[in-house]
Amino acid sequence: MIRKTFGSILIAVAVWQVSAVAGTATVKYPKNWREWTHVKTLILQAGHPLADPFEGLHHVYVNPAGKEAIEAGKTPLPEGTVLVFDLHEAAAADNAIAEGPRKFIGVMEKSTAKFGATGGWGFEAFKGDSQERAVTDGGASCWNCHASQPDGVFSKWTK
Amino acid sequence: MIRKTFGSILIAVAVWQVSAVAGTATVKYPKNWREWTHVKTLILQAGHPLADPFEGLHHVYVNPAGKEAIEAGKTPLPEGTVLVFDLHEAAAADNAIAEGPRKFIGVMEKSTAKFGATGGWGFEAFKGDSQERAVTDGGASCWNCHASQPDGVFSKWTK
Repeated sequence: MIRKTFGSILIAVAVWQVSAVAGTATVKYPKNWREWTHVKTLILQAGHPLADPFEGLHHVYVNPAGKEAIEAGKTPLPEGTVLVFDLHEAAAADNAIAEGPRKFIGVMEKSTAKFGATGGWGFEAFKGDSQERAVTDGGASCWNCHASQPDGVFSKWTK
Repeated sequence: MIRKTFGSILIAVAVWQVSAVAGTATVKYPKNWREWTHVKTLILQAGHPLADPFEGLHHVYVNPAGKEAIEAGKTPLPEGTVLVFDLHEAAAADNAIAEGPRKFIGVMEKSTAKFGATGGWGFEAFKGDSQERAVTDGGASCWNCHASQPDGVFSKWTK
């Protein structure tokens, strides 16, 4: 029994190590993110270099763990920080632009242990209003672009 | 001494009553409103019926007192609810629209006792990033338009 347990622990450690290296650890769907603190809003239009896949109106929200650091503009952000990028179609009509349907939410979760292969950040996207995952490369392509920023974060707090 | 105190109370009550009737009670500048819960965002452009004075990109935030009711779409909103309408110039460039400089914040404060003359809501605007007040009619013109809505509130929670 003791040997069996020890074997399970060894397997668990091995799986964890593979996850950290290969980027197969997964980001949890963030509960209640809509109530987190609003960091900023931006609209990207057709012709913008990031229009595929980010065309539309997006908000960024930060969870309580990362709120103080984001507000202060401090990096690196604390372990446990989660950022949500909430992307909607930009619904333009009658001289107004409103939120249209949700395209997806992008999620960044800070865990150096779990996501060491992508700068300590896990990346995921959930389609529309669902919890269906959309990132297929373990976040490698996300990190390729985010790596240019301080601690991999583009969003700055708008006062 | 007792008579003097009692006289002060009478004067205070009289001032309060005049304020309630004439709409001269004032809305407090809301501290830390930027950290409140984000309700919605909308851009109004030139040609929109409300472009004067609301042209630009605005966010609406609600304080903790009103958060639950706004989320649930319940009216009337509780006493003590404060809503902030945070209006910026819409800075359009390079196929993106971002927040430009702040034009003003509009504030609605729910107090039936203080603001009975305008539907129980006090209205104020503070210019730019300052605490300089901009509403000059005790909120009467604000209420003229807001009165068309359930409990005088246009903003609906975006899920």
